[in-house]
Parts: sequence; structure tokens; C-alpha cells
Amino acid sequence: MLQRTYKNQNCSIARALELVGERWTLLIVRDAALGLRRFDEFQRSLGIARNVLSERLARLVESGVFERRRYQERPARYEYVLSPMGRDLQVALLGLRQWGDRYLAEHGPPRLAEHKGCGGAATAKVTCDECGAELTPEAVRAVPGPAAALG
Amino acid sequence: MLQRTYKNQNCSIARALELVGERWTLLIVRDAALGLRRFDEFQRSLGIARNVLSERLARLVESGVFERRRYQERPARYEYVLSPMGRDLQVALLGLRQWGDRYLAEHGPPRLAEHKGCGGAATAKVTCDECGAELTPEAVRAVPGPAAALG
Repeated sequence: MLQRTYKNQNCSIARALELVGERWTLLIVRDAALGLRRFDEFQRSLGIARNVLSERLARLVESGVFERRRYQERPARYEYVLSPMGRDLQVALLGLRQWGDRYLAEHGPPRLAEHKGCGGAATAKVTCDECGAELTPEAVRAVPGPAAALG
Repeated sequence: MLQRTYKNQNCSIARALELVGERWTLLIVRDAALGLRRFDEFQRSLGIARNVLSERLARLVESGVFERRRYQERPARYEYVLSPMGRDLQVALLGLRQWGDRYLAEHGPPRLAEHKGCGGAATAKVTCDECGAELTPEAVRAVPGPAAALG
């Protein structure tokens, strides 16, 4: 198991960041979501040292975010594919991307997210499961959950 | 200005992580979203070294995520409040929290997000602006945006 980066934090954001909060990690997940699978593809896209990439991929496989699959027998070669758990980072990743697009992209968005079905823009937003309203940050409050007392 | 952490990345996720991807940074934003404002409150909540917290807050103010407000004249004391830009991290933060709740919270969610208006659960999700469908990761594709050619 990975070490705990945020020891005294009874918080799912902290737990999530322990798995994907390291430098480069979310960009590896992004690349995989964009269709990259092979070590050399990630390496070229990110331009990082091979040993760093290798270590990050190993941790991501260990923690269940990626699956490592053999795609060639001799010599054995592997590719790295997001697990369902890894694909479920989409909301967080798209949320980060939108935020970057809105506040940090001087020349407009480098990429857009599109609904394959109808070609409409795919947007991450916060909505109410009960009344269906789209919620601003001000309309949401945090309340203790089932595991609050463990904190 | 902050240094570029991801130099060759024409990507809003990379830009976003340059501002909020450092260790502790998103947890400071989380604490502020939960209502904390003062240096000592953040310090107690996070249990990190004061110099680290001080450096992180200064960068977050510099990059516009936080506003620093004087709340006492003599001696001068300041509090740290999320700017509209900072509050807009809600979608990304809630997305991360949901992911942590789903895959990493053995005893259930420590916190729940609630719509103040009706008490319903507030959920971050990806939907299509055109047809309104809720979108799985498989239903979304990335396409080049206006600034794609700069990459």
C-alpha cells in the first residue's frame, strides 16, 4: 500500500490526492483518457524522465487506477489502460480543465470535451439530486457524513 | 508570476495544476470552502509547518485564488477568503471528493455535500449542454479547441 501523505485528514479529497496528487500523476491519467496507452507515448507526451514515469505508472497500477496489460508476447510488452476507477476521475479532471480554461487559458481552450452522441459540449457541473437545480458554490454546504466521527 | 511546472503542456489541466497542484494546496482551498479563514485555523486543520502554510497562502493570493483581507487594525491581522476564481474550484474539488468517497472511504463518506435550498445531495457530474444527457467517460471525447494549434 502507498504511504499516507495526509495522515490526520479524515477526508476523501485528501485520500484522493494521496493516489493522484503527485506531480505528473493527473497528467498521466489525462493522457490515458485521451487514448495513450504505451510507455513511450506517455513519455513523449509528458517529456519527463523515464524513471519518474515508470514509478508513477507502477503506483497507479498498484492503487487500481490503471490496468497493466500485455500486448505482445516476445519480448513481453505492456500497455497501461485506465480501470473503471481511473475513468471515474473524469468529473474531477474535466472540472480542473474547465477551471483552467476559464481563468488561465489566455488564447482560449486548447481542448474541448464533446458528447460523442450529439456533438454537444460536455460540461462538469454540480447539481442537486433532489430538485435538479444547478448549484453555485454558495448554494452548497458540507454536512457530516457516516464516517465523520472517525475524524 | 509563478514558475511553470509543466513547461511544454498546452493544456488547461496542466495550467490548473501549476496553481493548485502542490502538496497541501487543494486542502487549503477545501478548508476555505468549509469556512476557515484565519492562518491559525488552517494551520490547526492541516497540521503543517507554518512556513509551508505561509508560502502556500502567499502563492494562492498572488495567483488570485484567495483574497487577503485585513480584519483587525492594531496589530494588523489578515484572513484568507476564496475569490470567485477560488470558489469556482468547487466542481473539481467535489469531483475529487466523490471519487475518494467511492473508492477510498472504507467507512463511508466523512462529509456530504448538500443543497442548502432543499437539502438534497449535491453531486458533480458531466452532462451534455445540448441534449442534457448525463455522460459517462466513454460518451465523451476530446476535440481540438481554439488554442489547440499553440501546443
